[in-house]
Amino acid sequence: MERSIDAQLDELKKLILIMGGHVEKALFEVSSAIISKDHSRFKKVFELEEKINEAHVQVDNFCVQLLAKQSPVAKDLRFILSIIKINTDLERMGDQTKNIAYTAQEYLVRPALQQIQWISKMSESVSKMVHGALDAFVRGDVELAQKILLMDDEVDEFKNKVISDLAQHMKKNSQDVEAALDLIVMARNFERLGDHATNIAEDVIFAFTGKDVRHGGIYG
Amino acid sequence: MERSIDAQLDELKKLILIMGGHVEKALFEVSSAIISKDHSRFKKVFELEEKINEAHVQVDNFCVQLLAKQSPVAKDLRFILSIIKINTDLERMGDQTKNIAYTAQEYLVRPALQQIQWISKMSESVSKMVHGALDAFVRGDVELAQKILLMDDEVDEFKNKVISDLAQHMKKNSQDVEAALDLIVMARNFERLGDHATNIAEDVIFAFTGKDVRHGGIYG
Repeated sequence: MERSIDAQLDELKKLILIMGGHVEKALFEVSSAIISKDHSRFKKVFELEEKINEAHVQVDNFCVQLLAKQSPVAKDLRFILSIIKINTDLERMGDQTKNIAYTAQEYLVRPALQQIQWISKMSESVSKMVHGALDAFVRGDVELAQKILLMDDEVDEFKNKVISDLAQHMKKNSQDVEAALDLIVMARNFERLGDHATNIAEDVIFAFTGKDVRHGGIYG
Repeated sequence: MERSIDAQLDELKKLILIMGGHVEKALFEVSSAIISKDHSRFKKVFELEEKINEAHVQVDNFCVQLLAKQSPVAKDLRFILSIIKINTDLERMGDQTKNIAYTAQEYLVRPALQQIQWISKMSESVSKMVHGALDAFVRGDVELAQKILLMDDEVDEFKNKVISDLAQHMKKNSQDVEAALDLIVMARNFERLGDHATNIAEDVIFAFTGKDVRHGGIYG
């Protein structure tokens, strides 16, 4: 007979995956809105962000109930604590995506810059990261989680290239300062999204190995 | 007779307060380093950030032990879950302060901008926020926690003023683009620090009222 906690942990997993799906969808919508200059798509981003917030509270309450009623220990406890942290990161990813949408709405009324092209690449990379991190989570695939940590370095490097390119552009085209600043803000939001996906990957490693890889693992 | 869990919760409170003290100290050191152009103070910021990381892992482990051994419910459970979240926010505040130090080191070798003056004000505001939020936490002062939420609006508003001022400056002084970008990055880091202090205040409200004020409280 299956322990009742297992069924509940499975339900939690499903909730987290649905929430992760909303984040991926929001990332796709926001970059599509920007690239196609289709303002109507921003509405979808805001709707998805609300769904993410709703799921956030739902998952949190579920975890509290589970801890109170089942008093889980060892692996199950680590698993639930990881979900609490992953849940926080996914919620912040929703916030970040909404922030990108706000900045993008301002950006789209300014003269277009060709540098906007990077947005698809960053959006895809972050989407892959969060998908991979959650995949690693449900499968308990620590090796995959470790790969996600490396992907974050690429996102950071790419963001640095985008910013230094835009700085050069601003120096020569003072009329584009506001538009370039919008792009820089968005690039930094994507960097933060990558950081949150990295946090999730670290939580996966902790959930399945009990090993703390944060801070270079020196205190773990 | 005091329940053994009470003594342990008190110890947790102390650990979190020490950690918060490190964050405040790091904020003070980083803004002092910038204002006085004293590079040696950055070292202190990095040392404090390491202490914060160490405390982060210590608090997390303490919470896991407590959950596993005491199986707390209701108020105690909410308290421990809040500590887990506050701990995450304090750790990220350490990261943000370190990031400010990195950017400041680059900024200080460029031509100085008078706009750097805001740094003391932002640093003080954020320091007050984290101090107030943790004070509210140890005293169970929900009213104080609510005041912190309002302070964050001021930090955000101030940051927006700083950024639009710097955008105007860049348009007229293309030689200052890099320095101005450094200041914008730091202003945004302070904004994030304010966000984390806000998260802590929200956790305090949850810990002592069971009320979820995140997302405007609509799902709580």
